[in-house]
Amino acid sequence: MKRFTSVHDAAHSVGLDAILETSGRVAADPWCYADAGRRRTLGLLFFNPSLRTRMSTQKAAQLLGMDTIVMNVGSDSWTLETRDGVVMDGGATEHIREAAAVMGQYCDILGIRTFAGLKDRDFDYAETVLESMITYSGVPVVSLESATRHPLQSLADLITIQSLVPARRPKVVLTWAPHPKALPQAVANSFAEWMLAANMDLVITHPEGYELAPEFVRGATILHDQDSALDGADIVYAKNWSSYQQYGAILSKDPSWTITPQKMARTNHARFMHCLPVRRNVIVTDEVLDSEQSIVIQQAANRVVSAQAVLYHLLQAL
Amino acid sequence: MKRFTSVHDAAHSVGLDAILETSGRVAADPWCYADAGRRRTLGLLFFNPSLRTRMSTQKAAQLLGMDTIVMNVGSDSWTLETRDGVVMDGGATEHIREAAAVMGQYCDILGIRTFAGLKDRDFDYAETVLESMITYSGVPVVSLESATRHPLQSLADLITIQSLVPARRPKVVLTWAPHPKALPQAVANSFAEWMLAANMDLVITHPEGYELAPEFVRGATILHDQDSALDGADIVYAKNWSSYQQYGAILSKDPSWTITPQKMARTNHARFMHCLPVRRNVIVTDEVLDSEQSIVIQQAANRVVSAQAVLYHLLQAL
Amino acid sequence: MKRFTSVHDAAHSVGLDAILETSGRVAADPWCYADAGRRRTLGLLFFNPSLRTRMSTQKAAQLLGMDTIVMNVGSDSWTLETRDGVVMDGGATEHIREAAAVMGQYCDILGIRTFAGLKDRDFDYAETVLESMITYSGVPVVSLESATRHPLQSLADLITIQSLVPARRPKVVLTWAPHPKALPQAVANSFAEWMLAANMDLVITHPEGYELAPEFVRGATILHDQDSALDGADIVYAKNWSSYQQYGAILSKDPSWTITPQKMARTNHARFMHCLPVRRNVIVTDEVLDSEQSIVIQQAANRVVSAQAVLYHLLQAL
Repeated sequence: MKRFTSVHDAAHSVGLDAILETSGRVAADPWCYADAGRRRTLGLLFFNPSLRTRMSTQKAAQLLGMDTIVMNVGSDSWTLETRDGVVMDGGATEHIREAAAVMGQYCDILGIRTFAGLKDRDFDYAETVLESMITYSGVPVVSLESATRHPLQSLADLITIQSLVPARRPKVVLTWAPHPKALPQAVANSFAEWMLAANMDLVITHPEGYELAPEFVRGATILHDQDSALDGADIVYAKNWSSYQQYGAILSKDPSWTITPQKMARTNHARFMHCLPVRRNVIVTDEVLDSEQSIVIQQAANRVVSAQAVLYHLLQAL
Repeated sequence: MKRFTSVHDAAHSVGLDAILETSGRVAADPWCYADAGRRRTLGLLFFNPSLRTRMSTQKAAQLLGMDTIVMNVGSDSWTLETRDGVVMDGGATEHIREAAAVMGQYCDILGIRTFAGLKDRDFDYAETVLESMITYSGVPVVSLESATRHPLQSLADLITIQSLVPARRPKVVLTWAPHPKALPQAVANSFAEWMLAANMDLVITHPEGYELAPEFVRGATILHDQDSALDGADIVYAKNWSSYQQYGAILSKDPSWTITPQKMARTNHARFMHCLPVRRNVIVTDEVLDSEQSIVIQQAANRVVSAQAVLYHLLQAL
Repeated sequence: MKRFTSVHDAAHSVGLDAILETSGRVAADPWCYADAGRRRTLGLLFFNPSLRTRMSTQKAAQLLGMDTIVMNVGSDSWTLETRDGVVMDGGATEHIREAAAVMGQYCDILGIRTFAGLKDRDFDYAETVLESMITYSGVPVVSLESATRHPLQSLADLITIQSLVPARRPKVVLTWAPHPKALPQAVANSFAEWMLAANMDLVITHPEGYELAPEFVRGATILHDQDSALDGADIVYAKNWSSYQQYGAILSKDPSWTITPQKMARTNHARFMHCLPVRRNVIVTDEVLDSEQSIVIQQAANRVVSAQAVLYHLLQAL
């Protein structure tokens, strides 16, 4: 595998099954590939804050014997220009072309965390920053969340569902939930495409106007009635996102979409999932999050597993 | 030892003598436990800036063969909610319950640096942030300074006194000194309880209104006359703190409390100690700090020793 | 070698030739000294942001088997006082005397990144911060760029020229170029003294008023006509700096000094160099930077080589 930015990168290289098999091996024995990354350097570049991704990826690298160098753009370093042909007499000190090429000289693999600006949909959905890093660095790149996807999260979600949910083809409900700030569609997009790639029975529910980009949800059932969607669910995956159509807009903060014990009662004793960080009593009530049905911590723990499996396959292809 | 947040944690587990014996061994041979932390990960979580604690704890972990992951809350990551039951629709992105539980999945031991807000005494003295981390992380926690104590500093202080001061039961004087900003009582509280646990002859001197919380100073002599307190001292430990009674208030900036050569002349050729950072010519004059009597650098060097001894005992109990 | 702050430190200890020989060895086999730094700790202290220096020095330390601790003054830590005798009742929390001495207790070698304030020339050119760190830390110090020099960059520049430019004594042209902000003279000063020490045919060209400090350029040809300077050049090294005479002033933003294909056409098929970060279409046009003549990425890659060679010699002298 030469890059990992979506389920397609996995599917078109080693295949999803191979990644899941590797995940199973490292979950069972975290040190089983302790020398796979020996004398290899992983550079982690963060354009915005992160807790789980930062820690789990460093941990995964350690388990593989890799050295890690972490860079925070904007605090450790400076702002980067991403547009081509511009006269750089403003605030940006360096162009991403040079920054990427230089980091590619120092690191064997780069991890990039970027974030949708939510202002210019074409810019975000072209994955300008991530694709520039891939083009100019010349080394394998793993997305640590990009403008439109969060594939290490989605792989961890899939691992979690497969290990904890006995149903052969579980009914997985991705439900929008309210949030005070405008958030990207990345987690929802990515979760949808991974669930569909793994042949889950995926239902997506959200208020009108919150339709995701069609290329991510082809094959899913879309419902605007959350209650009907939740009926008989095996998994309830809650997440807020802002509008894709009216790009970046908050169209609703309707608290009736918050996941409560009453909502969970409609399900087939569903497990509750969220990628974290989660706003308590906004996305989901304390009762649900603190219940036995909640598997958000196991889900977060599997971030190490997914990062380790992906890094392993990137290392193998060096 | 399952946690290290105060002298009581040490006393009630392996015992203070065992910690001091381990300290002696690692001081004599820093690499004597070079494999004790092999394949173990230490997570260090900073809620506020730090130099000595950050560097000395990383160094200690390296000497034990541990991997370290450092997180700065608020710059690398985001602000955390610590209150229970709240509707999280404000600035805080994540609850400490999830943050702690997730970090406990990635790390074998967590180090937490928090700080008194100096606004709500009950909140600070309940050690809300530290105790939440302990409760929800599920792994051993070492305090890197908390709202009311700084036990790695106090252990380093004790090691320093025992190694450099020949007196069998030295007269140790903890003296308040002026400072332009309101500081927590943590270092003073913690120093007092460690000195008393080690059976030192402890005298505490400060202006009226600066009485420390009674649970920390039971057994010490309290004097409001600094000169009398300093008479015959073997150790002068200077530190500023804000008022405990009028919580967080600055009641005095009286420069006559600054430690000068004249003050030191009253002592029994005392050694001068301070936990650093120290404001020169406010807490203590250049003449004293740059004199042979000052042992602040050896004291700071012993921060590696204390962290290494504590991490060793936490590792042994995993 | 006990310190590395300029070409003179190298020349007066192991000698420039020995450093270049070591550079050649580590460039050919990066892991050839993989145990040279075993059980040694490198502390990296940044007073201002950095990308290449931060990453390349960490990478170099890893190649030598050293542990690295990174500190960002002002974000991870706090502001430091550098003046002597001052009453520290203002913003600075700690004096560099204590900070340096403490870091010297935790680290075997310190790397310091500081930056000209461009307000007080005497303060900057005395290298107050760097020299204080050297004096008070008590351990070998490597400059990661200081107020007046950037020796790891200059060594990387020299390595790059020697490996890529066949001419026996190449004509090296250091040319001023415009920039929207006031920048230090450090890179230009340092490049000049290294090129002269290596006996290059050095021509420096800049608008009037941009004369560098005489001690750095003795032996170079100084021209105010950029076109004449570029005639027959083997190397074009572009860099902006602010005025040394009218200290820190921007006297010109003349776009006719930007390096363009037309300028490069005057040269002897010169290679284009810049230390990066570079402002595209201000310092140099896209056409030149993206051409085959540009060697800025190889130059940045050699930052690992120069750091590794210097750290190796500092380690040898411990």
